[in-house]
Amino acid sequence: MFTVGIITVSDKGYTGQREDLSGPAIERILETIGGRVADYKIVPDEMEKISETIVHMTDELGIDLILTTGGTGFSSRDVTPEATLAVIDKQVPGIPEAMRLVSMQITAKAMLSRAVAGIRKSSLIINLPGSPKGVTESLEAILPALPHGLLILQGKTGECGSTQSDT
Amino acid sequence: MFTVGIITVSDKGYTGQREDLSGPAIERILETIGGRVADYKIVPDEMEKISETIVHMTDELGIDLILTTGGTGFSSRDVTPEATLAVIDKQVPGIPEAMRLVSMQITAKAMLSRAVAGIRKSSLIINLPGSPKGVTESLEAILPALPHGLLILQGKTGECGSTQSDT
Amino acid sequence: MFTVGIITVSDKGYTGQREDLSGPAIERILETIGGRVADYKIVPDEMEKISETIVHMTDELGIDLILTTGGTGFSSRDVTPEATLAVIDKQVPGIPEAMRLVSMQITAKAMLSRAVAGIRKSSLIINLPGSPKGVTESLEAILPALPHGLLILQGKTGECGSTQSDT
Repeated sequence: MFTVGIITVSDKGYTGQREDLSGPAIERILETIGGRVADYKIVPDEMEKISETIVHMTDELGIDLILTTGGTGFSSRDVTPEATLAVIDKQVPGIPEAMRLVSMQITAKAMLSRAVAGIRKSSLIINLPGSPKGVTESLEAILPALPHGLLILQGKTGECGSTQSDT
Repeated sequence: MFTVGIITVSDKGYTGQREDLSGPAIERILETIGGRVADYKIVPDEMEKISETIVHMTDELGIDLILTTGGTGFSSRDVTPEATLAVIDKQVPGIPEAMRLVSMQITAKAMLSRAVAGIRKSSLIINLPGSPKGVTESLEAILPALPHGLLILQGKTGECGSTQSDT
Repeated sequence: MFTVGIITVSDKGYTGQREDLSGPAIERILETIGGRVADYKIVPDEMEKISETIVHMTDELGIDLILTTGGTGFSSRDVTPEATLAVIDKQVPGIPEAMRLVSMQITAKAMLSRAVAGIRKSSLIINLPGSPKGVTESLEAILPALPHGLLILQGKTGECGSTQSDT
């Protein structure tokens, strides 16, 4: 069991012009590996707002896994990776690498995703694409590794993040 | 249609000791997807000179796509990635990942390329290898994704960079 | 011929509670491509201690290739990548990408490795996983490219790091 925070980053979602389908998609997928959604926010594509929401979920709520959806592309309003980089203590480059690797087999456009992942205190933060389809593909690529990573972060096992037994 | 700026980074090219074959190779390939070369410069392997040339092409000329060739290796004079990182607003890690992935199937040495890609204002900047062969391999790996990325950067479509429909 | 420095990062190894099997594994593998171990240290999972040891091996001993093992995972004590980033002049992202790519074919957990690689002066520094198995898998993924990279770093060839002939 672990807690999940979902942050949907979307100007149109925030103002109610577009229904958020990606947040619910994340919830359905995470439930299959024991994730329970503890908080869910829709925020506009504004760096400060995104960073604040991440920090609230980590520092105040102590949520284990925070998943953002949206804002990782090439538009001038896309600042989710920058907002994430601004508040993480450590980068986890292998997670976005794995997501892009799998998604690139479906569409070359996947290489344009600027998603990042990182650790703040004992929370893992991962940027996902904006569409329900992108969210599903990306999550499936990393799902097999998430439970182990979250256990290490929570200090519940001495095993290390990679294939090593002593870190 | 989009505009292309080519920056050949080479001490020997700058002093005329070596003919630049990579610049013309870039031009030929980009023309196939509607790119028109608007500026082409040969600069020495000097960080300030490379950064200045990128900034001139983005801020003064408003060029859509800037491709550097050379200076991404292990030599002490190789500083193209650092000169690029110094002036971009946002990193685009999936582009160099895709280039290395494809090139590594040809030669293991491809993992030594330190190329980066990023966005400054509404321009995309990508580091390519120095040789015409390396340029061709790397460009072919990313060509299918470039037109979509450039459209988003120019604000000509609401679609996002990845597979998502709302960013 | 090139010199190798091994840094085993492990609280338990440092206090003698665990025998270091990864250091000797690194030595055996590097010997096959002409590496000679010039220094070997076991340090605790402390950022300052790791950074200092890297700097001593590069700046004082002039070692060509420095390999760390351990401390790249998700535990709060895992700080080897941060200690490495703090002292390198240039990042070499393709090396950890290649290691994760190969290891992910064996276990999905490999995407959790936060390993980085970089250049300081004319030394190449690479983070490896903590276990002998992880070390072996990761080194085998990058071994074919290392001799060429080290030659360039030592200024012994004009050839560039990638597939290019002029950088």
